[in-house]
Amino acid sequence: MKKTEMEGKVKLKAGERIDDLQLSGLKIIQDPSRFCFGMDAVLLSGFVKAKEGANILDIGTGTGILPLLLSAKTKAAHITGLEIQEESAEMAERSLTLNSDILNGRLDIVRGDIKEAGKLFAPASFEVICCNPPYKKAGSGIINPHDAKAVARHEIYCTFDDIAKQANMLLKGGGKLFIVHRPERLPELCITLSKRRLEVKRMRFVYPFADREPEMVLIEAAKDGKSGMKAEKPLIIYESEGVYSAEIKRDYGF
Amino acid sequence: MKKTEMEGKVKLKAGERIDDLQLSGLKIIQDPSRFCFGMDAVLLSGFVKAKEGANILDIGTGTGILPLLLSAKTKAAHITGLEIQEESAEMAERSLTLNSDILNGRLDIVRGDIKEAGKLFAPASFEVICCNPPYKKAGSGIINPHDAKAVARHEIYCTFDDIAKQANMLLKGGGKLFIVHRPERLPELCITLSKRRLEVKRMRFVYPFADREPEMVLIEAAKDGKSGMKAEKPLIIYESEGVYSAEIKRDYGF
Repeated sequence: MKKTEMEGKVKLKAGERIDDLQLSGLKIIQDPSRFCFGMDAVLLSGFVKAKEGANILDIGTGTGILPLLLSAKTKAAHITGLEIQEESAEMAERSLTLNSDILNGRLDIVRGDIKEAGKLFAPASFEVICCNPPYKKAGSGIINPHDAKAVARHEIYCTFDDIAKQANMLLKGGGKLFIVHRPERLPELCITLSKRRLEVKRMRFVYPFADREPEMVLIEAAKDGKSGMKAEKPLIIYESEGVYSAEIKRDYGF
Repeated sequence: MKKTEMEGKVKLKAGERIDDLQLSGLKIIQDPSRFCFGMDAVLLSGFVKAKEGANILDIGTGTGILPLLLSAKTKAAHITGLEIQEESAEMAERSLTLNSDILNGRLDIVRGDIKEAGKLFAPASFEVICCNPPYKKAGSGIINPHDAKAVARHEIYCTFDDIAKQANMLLKGGGKLFIVHRPERLPELCITLSKRRLEVKRMRFVYPFADREPEMVLIEAAKDGKSGMKAEKPLIIYESEGVYSAEIKRDYGF
């Protein structure tokens, strides 16, 4: 499919571009002046495990990167992206249209607030929930709630506890929550997940280099799971300055 | 000092040997048929930070490896090793005698049960507590409480919560607890430490190889500390099969 044909399906707004996800022909609309997806979303998509036929929810989907990647990386029956910001939700919907021939209706975008998930979805309706949440606490500074970058980075619309609480309600028994977060908040994440009856079952640290502090941690938690976690081998992004590691090249197409 | 002179200071029992710690001339008595110290104790000794003049307690000191290493690696005023097993405590005391010229009375061994720490030590009397605890839950199998290996590996005499509870009582405000444990139990450790008002401040994963699952995690927690943790670069033991990494060679003399 030629670029011109694809672009013909959707209207691009000023400043927007179409990125090729290098995966099953998928494309995504991005606007560099707004928040663009990062390495964290890509790594989370590789960490998620979903059985064939699963119903997946992505909380705070932004421009829809995780549902798009998971549509190719899993055999999930359906993937819903929940997004509170109208501009991001609308961009995500146009990306779905852009990929409609590939997606066959497996994805949809729902507008709404995760704190009101009870009004949006039936309880225990997902086998898998994933989330690339804002990493920073809202703090006391004034943050513009219409700034897509600020919303993606700071807990303006919801806290991690809101996410864990709603994930517990929305997951089926034994269902899994997959998140990526900052290692700095790991102890608090473990405590909050446990409080919300989400047992941490798997964890992987992401190091930029083999001799550098980790920048992310990938976590899998199971609703009402038994205690006992599997810690995985380190995920190292760069082999040397500017050279991706073999795993990143092989599994993520960088 | 020649080996014969040193051995002259203490009586070795059948099966015992003297190991050179390759650090400030320190030696330790070990009995390969009992529990010998491992890499975990050595790595924990490098993770502990103690200010000059600090009063340190090592909970479950076994044959005294941590107090001996910390006597050389820190400028602590005094280091106490607490041990419940008579045979181990007695071996540790003979190692102290063996090193008496170097130690100048900075170390001592106290016999007792950490669960009765209130009878052994004054509250808030240590700046630093360290512990290389048993990693495994006691479980339901029958374990011989006189078996030094079993006691070192299984929570027979105390649980991790016992250690955290007593550490909180014995630490001064802002005092630090340093532990080494299995990554599998990390979420539970975070929850227990938090419950006992010990805030995880620093964490380092120990990987046998750069592409293998971590086998240990080193944790620093502060009594009544603020939230926010520093995750450190990975500690990788082997560069390749049988070849220690540069860090292990440089910092631990392997």
